Amino acid sequence: MSFNRKIQTIQKRSDSLLCVGLDTDAAKLPLHLRSKKNGILEFNKRIIESTKDLVCAYKINFAFYEVLGKEGWTIIEKTLALIPSAVLTIADAKRGDIGNTSSQYARAIFNEMGFDSVTVSPYMGIDSVQPFLEQKDKGVFLLALTSNKGAFDFQYRKSGKKRLFEEVVTTAQKWTSHNNLGFVVGATKSTDIRSVRKLAPDAPFLVPGIGAQGGSVEEVVKYGCTSNGSGILINASRSILYASSEKDFAGAARSEALKLKNEINFFRHTFF
Amino acid sequence: MSFNRKIQTIQKRSDSLLCVGLDTDAAKLPLHLRSKKNGILEFNKRIIESTKDLVCAYKINFAFYEVLGKEGWTIIEKTLALIPSAVLTIADAKRGDIGNTSSQYARAIFNEMGFDSVTVSPYMGIDSVQPFLEQKDKGVFLLALTSNKGAFDFQYRKSGKKRLFEEVVTTAQKWTSHNNLGFVVGATKSTDIRSVRKLAPDAPFLVPGIGAQGGSVEEVVKYGCTSNGSGILINASRSILYASSEKDFAGAARSEALKLKNEINFFRHTFF
Repeated sequence: MSFNRKIQTIQKRSDSLLCVGLDTDAAKLPLHLRSKKNGILEFNKRIIESTKDLVCAYKINFAFYEVLGKEGWTIIEKTLALIPSAVLTIADAKRGDIGNTSSQYARAIFNEMGFDSVTVSPYMGIDSVQPFLEQKDKGVFLLALTSNKGAFDFQYRKSGKKRLFEEVVTTAQKWTSHNNLGFVVGATKSTDIRSVRKLAPDAPFLVPGIGAQGGSVEEVVKYGCTSNGSGILINASRSILYASSEKDFAGAARSEALKLKNEINFFRHTFF
Repeated sequence: MSFNRKIQTIQKRSDSLLCVGLDTDAAKLPLHLRSKKNGILEFNKRIIESTKDLVCAYKINFAFYEVLGKEGWTIIEKTLALIPSAVLTIADAKRGDIGNTSSQYARAIFNEMGFDSVTVSPYMGIDSVQPFLEQKDKGVFLLALTSNKGAFDFQYRKSGKKRLFEEVVTTAQKWTSHNNLGFVVGATKSTDIRSVRKLAPDAPFLVPGIGAQGGSVEEVVKYGCTSNGSGILINASRSILYASSEKDFAGAARSEALKLKNEINFFRHTFF
């Protein structure tokens, strides 16, 4: 099954467009876990157990694990093993390098670690991205329009009528025939999501920027979904993980996740 | 001492602009090391021992270590420990993410691992790069014009009179006052190196693309050096590491490195 088809299947079965980002920061753990040797893994385990029926995907932000050195890699592997196979896994690693190097990154993330997908930067062009697109059941979320303020530095740069992020979306779609390419489109630029959706009517969008970063769920659903009201993976990290810093953190995370899932579905039913 | 000043000092003392890229591929090790448990580390150790007096820097390509999982991180750490402190270390990791995530990457690479510098992708703009520029003795090589064919997809895109890579160089120089920002400028686009040098007269350039990728040493030196005939770090990886696949690989690597160092210096003396 192609990667994009797999997302459709998962979103239908889970009735959820919610992705939880495991940006687990040792300094933000609930106090009773902060001193524990396996605190971060224990935290991830509890978060996954309490949200796995509410999500279509988990996104693991590599930076928060790399900072722990080799121990971080062990935690990524053990966390992955806790995620049910019916939920999509995203390596949020923003990789991308010359062809022979990207091939090594793809092998590391897809084959050694076993992720379903990875975020990739488009700056270095075709041969930096294609090694991640070779396996049709594995997919890429290519950075198009990001949720941060730095997005305005280069991504909106116009050449003729097209802005750089639009050029990235148009060009990159020619790089695979495996139906396994999606895009990162930030929730904080909601009206521009519409432009990207027009250029890529069926591609899955990974949408960060809801929650701590302030994007609107209503606009993201309205402008971002495919014509059948799905096709976007709305990510929330900090607002769910750190909903409570007490012992009930997992319950609080579940409440936040459920609230967001329902809010997303409310707007799906309103607009589609 | 600022990062850029440190490079000047190292290049003067070593009389070398050569950077050796440790893109160590388990599948390409000499046969007698391929079956050894610590084959990759042993290989790096021998390469470093036999070239450390000929180089200004070593560049560690993270992809080739990440593919080994947590063991790869241990090898990076142990390899770093073998590099003399008088030689610059570059984490070739092409990182870059929203501010709070880039801060974690910066901490991992500079503070936990102890690298002097890192390669960063500019696509996400200011807040994705600045966390790597906060410590004045640690530096960034920001991707400007890369050596691969995919460079033509977006980096040459014109907006007004400026191409994207030129815009990146102009804009990014406003992001730090610490004299610690350099650029990646590929050797395969040698005449365009001249444009980048005009825009950034004193910034250090990390120049990949010599050797296996076919860039010209003469043109890189002529067009890339600062006015005093230094300021570029010419990287070679495969052509040095795999100069021989026999037991004499380290000697062969030294010969190749010496040849390239001398060729670079020949052109420095010719043009400056």
